[in-house]
Order: sequence, then C-alpha cells, then structure tokens
Amino acid sequence: MDAIPSHFLLSPLSTLSSSSAKRSLSLPSSRSSKFQISASSSLMESQNEGQGKFMEFPFVTASHKKLMVDLVSTLENRFEKQLLPCKLPPDVQYYQNESGTAQASLQIRSGQSDSLVDFVLGSWIHCELPTGASLDITSLSAYLNLSTDAPNFLIEVIRSSPTMLVLILDLPPRKDLALWPDDLKTFYEDTQIDTQRQALEKIPEIQPYFSSSLYIRTVSSPTAIMVRIETEAGGGERVEEIIAKHLDPISKQVLGIWLDHCACAKRDVGEIERALLKKRDGIVRKKTLEVDLDSSFPRLFGTQVANRVLEAIKEYFDV
Amino acid sequence: MDAIPSHFLLSPLSTLSSSSAKRSLSLPSSRSSKFQISASSSLMESQNEGQGKFMEFPFVTASHKKLMVDLVSTLENRFEKQLLPCKLPPDVQYYQNESGTAQASLQIRSGQSDSLVDFVLGSWIHCELPTGASLDITSLSAYLNLSTDAPNFLIEVIRSSPTMLVLILDLPPRKDLALWPDDLKTFYEDTQIDTQRQALEKIPEIQPYFSSSLYIRTVSSPTAIMVRIETEAGGGERVEEIIAKHLDPISKQVLGIWLDHCACAKRDVGEIERALLKKRDGIVRKKTLEVDLDSSFPRLFGTQVANRVLEAIKEYFDV
Repeated sequence: MDAIPSHFLLSPLSTLSSSSAKRSLSLPSSRSSKFQISASSSLMESQNEGQGKFMEFPFVTASHKKLMVDLVSTLENRFEKQLLPCKLPPDVQYYQNESGTAQASLQIRSGQSDSLVDFVLGSWIHCELPTGASLDITSLSAYLNLSTDAPNFLIEVIRSSPTMLVLILDLPPRKDLALWPDDLKTFYEDTQIDTQRQALEKIPEIQPYFSSSLYIRTVSSPTAIMVRIETEAGGGERVEEIIAKHLDPISKQVLGIWLDHCACAKRDVGEIERALLKKRDGIVRKKTLEVDLDSSFPRLFGTQVANRVLEAIKEYFDV
Repeated sequence: MDAIPSHFLLSPLSTLSSSSAKRSLSLPSSRSSKFQISASSSLMESQNEGQGKFMEFPFVTASHKKLMVDLVSTLENRFEKQLLPCKLPPDVQYYQNESGTAQASLQIRSGQSDSLVDFVLGSWIHCELPTGASLDITSLSAYLNLSTDAPNFLIEVIRSSPTMLVLILDLPPRKDLALWPDDLKTFYEDTQIDTQRQALEKIPEIQPYFSSSLYIRTVSSPTAIMVRIETEAGGGERVEEIIAKHLDPISKQVLGIWLDHCACAKRDVGEIERALLKKRDGIVRKKTLEVDLDSSFPRLFGTQVANRVLEAIKEYFDV
C-alpha cells in the first residue's frame, strides 16, 4: 500500500458517520449570498450537469464504473422520492486544481424529513501522480439519521495503478457493539454479512488491508471488508476480472443487506440513546475530518478549492 | 484454521473483560464447605503444587514454553506484592477429563485492594485430538479494575499441529474508542503498538487470522495481533524459529507497553464513567462466557469437571 498515500483513505468518502441532525440545506453564508444572485433556473441546469458529471466516472475502467453506477442507481431507485436532488453548487459538484492534474466530483443528496436517510454522498477523485500513473478513488456512502441507530453504508474503491486496488466495504456501526451484542446479532450475525468477506478471502490476489489510521480501523465493523488486490506487472486484466466477477456482486450483496436490514429497519431509539448517538456521530465525524481532510485536500486541490469543498461537506456533516 | 475448533478461541483465556468489582475470594458455597473441611496447610500445599503445574507448561515446545514462562514471570515480578497467591482449589488449578485425553491448568491471582489489577489469569489446555494430533492452548490475561479505564492485556497461543499456530495478542479496550479518540491516542497511537503487528505482517508464513466469533472481533482493539502461522508439512522447526525470533520478542514488547502505559497509568475515572465501565465490563464478560465456555467446556472435560471450573471462573468474572 506504500504506493497509495494513506490519507486518501480518509477522504470524505470514508468519514464513517452520519449527520446528527437534519440541517438546513442552505450553503454557508458567504457562499449562499453568491448563489442567491444566480438565477435559480441556471443553477438548476448547472446542478444537473454536476449530477451527470458524477455518474460519468470518466477516469476509471469499465468494470469499476459499472460497479459504481449500479450501486448508485440501486440505492437511488430504492429510495425513490425519499432523496432530495443534490443542492451543492456546481463548483463543488465538480472541481479541480489549478493545473488540472487533480479532478473530482461530489454529489450529496439529503433524505426527505420523513426518511431515515440523513444523506447519501457519492464522489470520485482522479489524480495524476508524478510517477505518470494515476490514482482514482470512487466512493458511495449513506448516512442514516437519529430516528434510527442502524449502521451506515460505505464503499470506497481506490485504484492506484492498473495492478493495485483497495476496497473498503462496510456497514460502519453507530453504537459500541461490545455494549450492544443484540445489535451485533441483528445487523451482522443474522444477516450473514461475513460470508461476503470470507468469499473474497479465498481469492489468491486478495489480502487484508490495514488502514494506517487507527481511528478508521476503530470505527469499522467486525465484518468490514478491507482488502488489497495486487497482481503482477501486466496483470491489469486480472484486476478487471476480479472487479467484475467478485467485487461487483459482493458489493451489491452488502448494499442489499444494508437496504433490507438497516436502511428500512424500524428501530426504537429512546431519548438517552438518541443523545448518545448524536454525540458519537458528531465525534466520529469531527475526528475523521480533523485527522484527514483538513490536511490532504489543500495539498491535492489548493487552499481555495479545498476550503470551498470542505465548507460544503461540513455543512452536511454538521461539524 | 479449520483444524482448530473455533470455540477454543473463546476459552477463559480470551474472555476480554475485567471483573467489575473486587469480589470475595471465597469459593461458591457448595465447594467452600468442602474445602473448609480440609486442613488449611494441606490446601496450601496443594495450591503450591497447582502453581508449579501451571508454570510447567508440560505439553508445549521449548520456545512456546519459554515465551509463556517469561511473560508470566515478567508480569508477576513487576507487580510483586500487588498480587495475592492463587486461591483456586487444587482440582481447578489442575483438571482433566475422565479418559485423561484432555488436561488443563488454571491459575488466577487477584490484585491487592490498593492495586489497579483486578486479577491475572493464566492457563494451559492440552487435548489429544481424534486425528492423533494434539491441541495446545496457552494463555495469559490481565484485567484491571474500576479504578482505571485503561485496557486489559491478553495473549493466547494456540497450536493445533506442529505446522500450525494462532496467536492472539492484544490490549482489549474497555471503552468505545470511537467515542474516546484521546484514549485511542494515549494507549494505541502514542505507544506505537501497531509497529509490533506490522513487524509480524512481513513474515511470509504469517497471515491475518479472523476469529469466527464476531463478538471476539468486536471487543478487540484496532491494533490487535490476530495471526495464523502455517508452514508446509514438516515445517515444525520453522514454526519454532518464528516463535523464538518473532513472537517471543513481540509479545514481550506488547506486555511491556501494557505494563508501562496501561497497568500503571493514573487515570481519572468519574462516577458516570465508572458506572458505564462496570456495565460494559459486565456485558463483555457475560456475553463471552455465554457464547463459548458454557458449551465447549462440557464437551472437552465432561459436565462435572466443566461446571466445577466454570463456577470458579465465574466467581472472578463476577457474572
């Protein structure tokens, strides 16, 4: 994993928490005023363009793109009208650094007020490396709100060369499972989600991956799929085959488990539990942003762009 | 790991919790009366014999025995007079099944009332398998009391054949580290304990090991060393070499970190935190015993012996 800067794994894509409360969808004040000046129709058009850009996944391979598009579509179709359109400004939905060597797209869709979904965040980042290779990170994460204590959903696919890929696929818990073994049973044992991890374990090119951030390990579930796929030089086709034959169906299974057993589960969250959930979600969010994005984003995209994107993300993460 | 019954990993040796309160050292009532009849001097002699038996580690290889004896001695020497002698009855300090195919030794030493140590538990189990091979599990765990919220210590070495070994080496946290990132920093980041896991990762015969119990994974720390060492047929000597050259120094490093930074750390535990700590310790203990020992011990040692040993353990675990 030395080829992949470890901080990339702590991109917005892997901030494993959910917003603790419905927040206003207004942009930060300095930005709101700018967009209030724009005609709303042209803003809408730009947003639609942004949406298109996100779903293009223009820099990744065919099997990688298919995996991501299918997951985003499955999730969006399942929630149908529960999700509001992405309200991010166009220059946050798509952004790049000055030289154009780093490009990215971000989409955040909030859940309606009667939904259990807080928001769904999708992203891709493409970065040309000094070595001539490129780094591509695609991610999709879904955060539930405080009406439920069920886990969130997260997938992150990191391709740092044709022969190397890291997959993080998890239902990050929102409670201390050691203290709540019944929740462990409900969401992780009864759903048999670990069979997906076990299936990947059998493939010779796949090795467990340990994030260099202990905090990221801490907030992962006991069935988290964190794997590195590495083939020999020239083995890019084998990586494609592994994506199509294994990562694709397994990620769909995990999303299916989340949709069926977490995102739609009726949970009884008492007042005290809700307060703790809010506190925990908040700390996880704050800590993850603190250790990661504040330093890596300016390096990748320059201070101005990084600040713009981070401010927008922080609005949703409520920190 | 198919050769090792998964429930062995949930032996008393890996019940990753600490007793929530100083408990009386008296035996369960039915047994106390028996021992009250014994002359105290002969009981003392039997206890000393039990202690000797535990430290013999009679069935494991030389390097495996050295590792265990050194760890037990280091821990006992460091605590010196803080630990009371083992008060377990002789037939709990050493026990076997009817046919003699399964033998085991158990030692539990409580901390003095002014110590941060709740109790230290050491054990070995030797079991002849129907295949002709034998299974040996040795373990040492140390549990802190409610005066501190620092992590516990645990090592478990499982040898199911000359060419196969599993090591579990961890400082199991006693708090939800996602909620307490400062504790993660203090005990796991600042101590650089993960460098020990990283060192083992580089050895080709060593692979990460995933416990079949999601609960055991849940109560592990983010730097837990859970590895399987497997060599080719006839590779027993290589396993010995790996124990002596790698597992031995690394387990001593981890114990050293625990002794220096956890077992002796002055921690300020407020009343509310202490109550939560007691609740969490209690649930972890109860759950671990429930999912494991209640079923595996009777299978190994027969109902009568199993009940005797389990009752004694439960006294210390306060469940």
